[in-house]
Amino acid sequence: MDGQQRVIIENVKPQINCGEFPIKRVINDKVNVSADIFCDSHDVLTAEVLYRYQGEKQARAVPMKQFPNDLWKGDFQVSKLGSYYYTVQAWVDHFKSWHRDILKRIDAQTDYGVDLLVGAEIINETLKNTSEIPARDEDFLKSIVSEFRNREKPLEDRIDGILSQRLYQVMINYPLKKKISKVEREFEVTVERLKANFSSWYEVFPRSLNPNGDQHGTFNDVINFLPYVADMGFDVLYLPPIHPIGKTNRKGKNNSVTAEPGEPGSPWAIGGKEGGHKAIHPELGTMDDFQKLVHEAAEQGIEIAMDIAFQCSPDHPYVKDHPQWFRQRPDGSLQYAENPPKKYEDIYPLNFETDDWQNLWEELKSVFMFWIDKGVKIFRVDNPHTKSMRFWGWTIQTIKKEHPDVIFLSEAFTRPKVMYNLAKQGFTQSYTYFTWRNTKYDLTTYCKQLVNTEVREFFRPNFWPNTPDILPEFLQVTNRAGFIQRVALAATLSSNYGMYGPAFELMDNTPTKPGKEEYLNSEKYEIKNWDYNQQNNLQKIIKRLNKIRQENKALQNTHSLKFHDIENEALVCFSKTTEDLSNIILVVVSLDPYHTHSGWIRFPLEEFEMDQHVPFQVHDLLSGSYFLWNGDHNYVEINPGIMPVHIFRVRRKVRSERDFDYFM
Amino acid sequence: MDGQQRVIIENVKPQINCGEFPIKRVINDKVNVSADIFCDSHDVLTAEVLYRYQGEKQARAVPMKQFPNDLWKGDFQVSKLGSYYYTVQAWVDHFKSWHRDILKRIDAQTDYGVDLLVGAEIINETLKNTSEIPARDEDFLKSIVSEFRNREKPLEDRIDGILSQRLYQVMINYPLKKKISKVEREFEVTVERLKANFSSWYEVFPRSLNPNGDQHGTFNDVINFLPYVADMGFDVLYLPPIHPIGKTNRKGKNNSVTAEPGEPGSPWAIGGKEGGHKAIHPELGTMDDFQKLVHEAAEQGIEIAMDIAFQCSPDHPYVKDHPQWFRQRPDGSLQYAENPPKKYEDIYPLNFETDDWQNLWEELKSVFMFWIDKGVKIFRVDNPHTKSMRFWGWTIQTIKKEHPDVIFLSEAFTRPKVMYNLAKQGFTQSYTYFTWRNTKYDLTTYCKQLVNTEVREFFRPNFWPNTPDILPEFLQVTNRAGFIQRVALAATLSSNYGMYGPAFELMDNTPTKPGKEEYLNSEKYEIKNWDYNQQNNLQKIIKRLNKIRQENKALQNTHSLKFHDIENEALVCFSKTTEDLSNIILVVVSLDPYHTHSGWIRFPLEEFEMDQHVPFQVHDLLSGSYFLWNGDHNYVEINPGIMPVHIFRVRRKVRSERDFDYFM
Repeated sequence: MDGQQRVIIENVKPQINCGEFPIKRVINDKVNVSADIFCDSHDVLTAEVLYRYQGEKQARAVPMKQFPNDLWKGDFQVSKLGSYYYTVQAWVDHFKSWHRDILKRIDAQTDYGVDLLVGAEIINETLKNTSEIPARDEDFLKSIVSEFRNREKPLEDRIDGILSQRLYQVMINYPLKKKISKVEREFEVTVERLKANFSSWYEVFPRSLNPNGDQHGTFNDVINFLPYVADMGFDVLYLPPIHPIGKTNRKGKNNSVTAEPGEPGSPWAIGGKEGGHKAIHPELGTMDDFQKLVHEAAEQGIEIAMDIAFQCSPDHPYVKDHPQWFRQRPDGSLQYAENPPKKYEDIYPLNFETDDWQNLWEELKSVFMFWIDKGVKIFRVDNPHTKSMRFWGWTIQTIKKEHPDVIFLSEAFTRPKVMYNLAKQGFTQSYTYFTWRNTKYDLTTYCKQLVNTEVREFFRPNFWPNTPDILPEFLQVTNRAGFIQRVALAATLSSNYGMYGPAFELMDNTPTKPGKEEYLNSEKYEIKNWDYNQQNNLQKIIKRLNKIRQENKALQNTHSLKFHDIENEALVCFSKTTEDLSNIILVVVSLDPYHTHSGWIRFPLEEFEMDQHVPFQVHDLLSGSYFLWNGDHNYVEINPGIMPVHIFRVRRKVRSERDFDYFM
Repeated sequence: MDGQQRVIIENVKPQINCGEFPIKRVINDKVNVSADIFCDSHDVLTAEVLYRYQGEKQARAVPMKQFPNDLWKGDFQVSKLGSYYYTVQAWVDHFKSWHRDILKRIDAQTDYGVDLLVGAEIINETLKNTSEIPARDEDFLKSIVSEFRNREKPLEDRIDGILSQRLYQVMINYPLKKKISKVEREFEVTVERLKANFSSWYEVFPRSLNPNGDQHGTFNDVINFLPYVADMGFDVLYLPPIHPIGKTNRKGKNNSVTAEPGEPGSPWAIGGKEGGHKAIHPELGTMDDFQKLVHEAAEQGIEIAMDIAFQCSPDHPYVKDHPQWFRQRPDGSLQYAENPPKKYEDIYPLNFETDDWQNLWEELKSVFMFWIDKGVKIFRVDNPHTKSMRFWGWTIQTIKKEHPDVIFLSEAFTRPKVMYNLAKQGFTQSYTYFTWRNTKYDLTTYCKQLVNTEVREFFRPNFWPNTPDILPEFLQVTNRAGFIQRVALAATLSSNYGMYGPAFELMDNTPTKPGKEEYLNSEKYEIKNWDYNQQNNLQKIIKRLNKIRQENKALQNTHSLKFHDIENEALVCFSKTTEDLSNIILVVVSLDPYHTHSGWIRFPLEEFEMDQHVPFQVHDLLSGSYFLWNGDHNYVEINPGIMPVHIFRVRRKVRSERDFDYFM
């Protein structure tokens, strides 16, 4: 301990689990750092954020600014993929204390002769200890010192230096850093590429894409499908597992326990005689076909996301080659998946308590590395919450060290703390409870938890109105307006969103039976033949939503989300902005797909640096209509039969005659 | 890393600054520990709080209980002064998972033959690895294993063991702890004596206690004053500094810059030719007199608290012997205290940035040790926030290692984070903003911050309605009811409270000038001659309050404080309870000392385990009146001219005819 350090630094934020886990950012984001900083007595302090990029030994320093209640803030920008590290240091700034006090003395006309000498000492010490002061400034400081010490001159003639901006500026620029208190722990930032923060996902089963009905689709069919996906404006095309599917205990149509001959089985029952997680299901095509697809997609601005589901069919090569990776039962059999009394005999889960865990971890990591090598940079991970949490931490961190541009989406639908921990372990994006949040209260409470708490630092939501596993009750009992409502909410509340199509845009909403949230005749167990030309499909509105997202940077972040009062439980109103407020989007969604609703929005102009007394224009990007609004309270009306959503772009000012050149 | 540990433990609470600082308890308190504990998949977990007393190598384990949202809780009791350490561990409990699942299988009538064998394996492994199972239980477990493995018998005849409470109980009592996840950091609890949590302070200037008017009072006069203090019910008598007072630049009456000959000076200008912080002001008496006072006070149930003010008059021996401990000015003088442009030339502050800081710290610590040796166990520390924070951490911790029964009260009136940090550094109790909290909003907001946040774990408030430095504006403009209101609030809101007497009970309330909060003719600068027989003085009501505190354990803690709704801004209503609810105190205070107010209290009976349908009795311990109340809402009326406060003891049940022996 150095007892001369008087400054205390507490509560550095952001800080996840006392610094155990990194926070997340994308390229060019700002990291806002804050801390409680104070010392005894009433000296003035100087505080800095220290930050460095991975591998750098020397940290850069950014000054922090003081706010009420001993709160200090500073920020820095991250410009490279990988890891940055930040911490905080502060010290008692004797120059600033002296400067503050002598100004008070001059003001109060008390004697300050000795204080001039004190100032001269402080400046001299700075000159001695701070090597990088330019010669010009050095000469200036020396002249001030002489002046302060020149007892020949009357006091009041020696204080020009104190009162000059230059003295203050030079001393601030080259501070004497002594007896520094520094937070020893460095906090990590994982910096990812922009798509980590802004992405539009479309999920499709390749085997259903053969244009000739019930035949098995191929990667080439996916290539032919790309223009459809690109036209709607999606930039990630996510495919369920493409590996060989097991035959033993294969599931049939509608999850029946035994498959009829010729039934294709579930793509999540991975592994057959053709191979496991590094092989391709022969009916989909070859590795070359797959790489061609990845390439063609990229040409059209689409990235292929692969599904990684770490579980094995009884026919998976691991079962023979590494039986120690599975749980052995006393009768010599391997433990299949189950949720007693339900059994999933087509799948063996991996045993993360195996004594051979190191080899298991390495092998699983090598699956990601194999596909990264084939050009895949986005992975959607199936049920990560049924694999050891620490395994994910190790795997993702290890892979990202080499490939910081790889994106991992966590599919966990489980308890909140487990979902959050998976995000802390390193998943880039996460599935959420959005799928079941339908009321105004539920939507606002949940979104506020995601964007207004420390969750925002490590958990990037990806909102899905449906998945092949979940046909939410709401979609089962709603109409077209209800579908539009849900996709518009997903696409505007969260900068990352996705849908399982074509089921979504073709409004498939029949469950296996009432009370279940499984699709009837689910594509998980059979090849589907979708009718893309179906009347009233949602392709156009989805295209429009994605275009609006592309054209409005405000919708390319999730964290600027703010909800606004509107006195109608059926209407939800929120805004998104860019940090500089150059783009402001105001969304009003009707949660009632059947009846017309209206209400008065309270849009707090001051928060958007807008003038109460100047009318402003809002432009509905869906309908194309323009409205001239005035003040905080403005009226909206929604007829869901026409369009259940307004997406307004707010123009902060409308020109008036006073803006005309010759007005004055 | 051990990859086989699947359990994650996060957010262990209480935890101050990530474990940097201890939490505080008194003897026999409970420590409630919680954590978020979970693992992948859906196995059942077992979790324990581990705790140990200082010096013990082996920690004891207490089982934790699971609550919704992956929250687990456990507690332990602290029974010895000093430090305890706690942490949390948890593991996947394969027995419990197996037990839960096989019960489901039996229920669903699915096959569980292999599961019986799995159970036999788990029990066998437990038998092998857990040495302390008693022979009886061991035999029992072995018989269960044989039963499970006995394929001769039909399945349904082999499950009695599973269904028996005994199997579950034995396996829970001797769990197989494997692949344990443990939080490596231990969290500290400082355990202090009961007075740390419940104390009633009375501050008096010994020099004003000479019964013959203006002569200098002595320790013997304090001895004669003890019965007065004891009669009012105080158990700590706190004396301003008793050391020699400096002569150089001595302050006169009402803080005038120069003292007239014969003026006594401020006791806080410490040090003269007779000595410094280890010496006694000759006019007060000798060291023997002082020790006699400490002894006599103890006989009457009173502890003497000393004031430690680490600052020096220009005549203090340190100034000559250790000039390096003060700030030198370029003209060769030492830097006096100041708050520019104000100067306090009778005092030199110590320079905690001195290169000789180690010797300074040791010397200051030795001041405490000196007086501890003389029998003092309570120190009120003057302005600790003008001395280095880390110095306090080191000093208090070092002293408490040897003398865990010593109590330190922090006098800081400064910014919240500084006050809280002093408490974290180790101060037992702290002055607060209560002195300025007069409105209902201010009182409730402030008290909630103290008792409903993590502040409760390290900051023990001590509420003072006045001090020699602060005659609050409220007292200046109020009447007798206002004084009663303030002392009743202090004495009931906080289990630690104090007052500067006789100024308080004699209702001295003249400031130096309007707008100032300094007492006119303050005892800080002169000897006062109080008229204890003054009409209308508050001795009796204070005595009553202290008696109520003594007789009601609910008022001997601060943390059970709950505010209750009452629809009148002039009335504040709150309760205090013992943990077992055997003592419930309900307080209603009128903040308006002039007018009668009434209102309906909402006293939420269910929170006090009381029956909505059974009338209950409240007994006003101040007036002696009894009231029979019914349900949640009850009417109160306060005429401040009679008594501005109700302190009700709540009797949870009133006997009725149904309680009479022959009723049934």
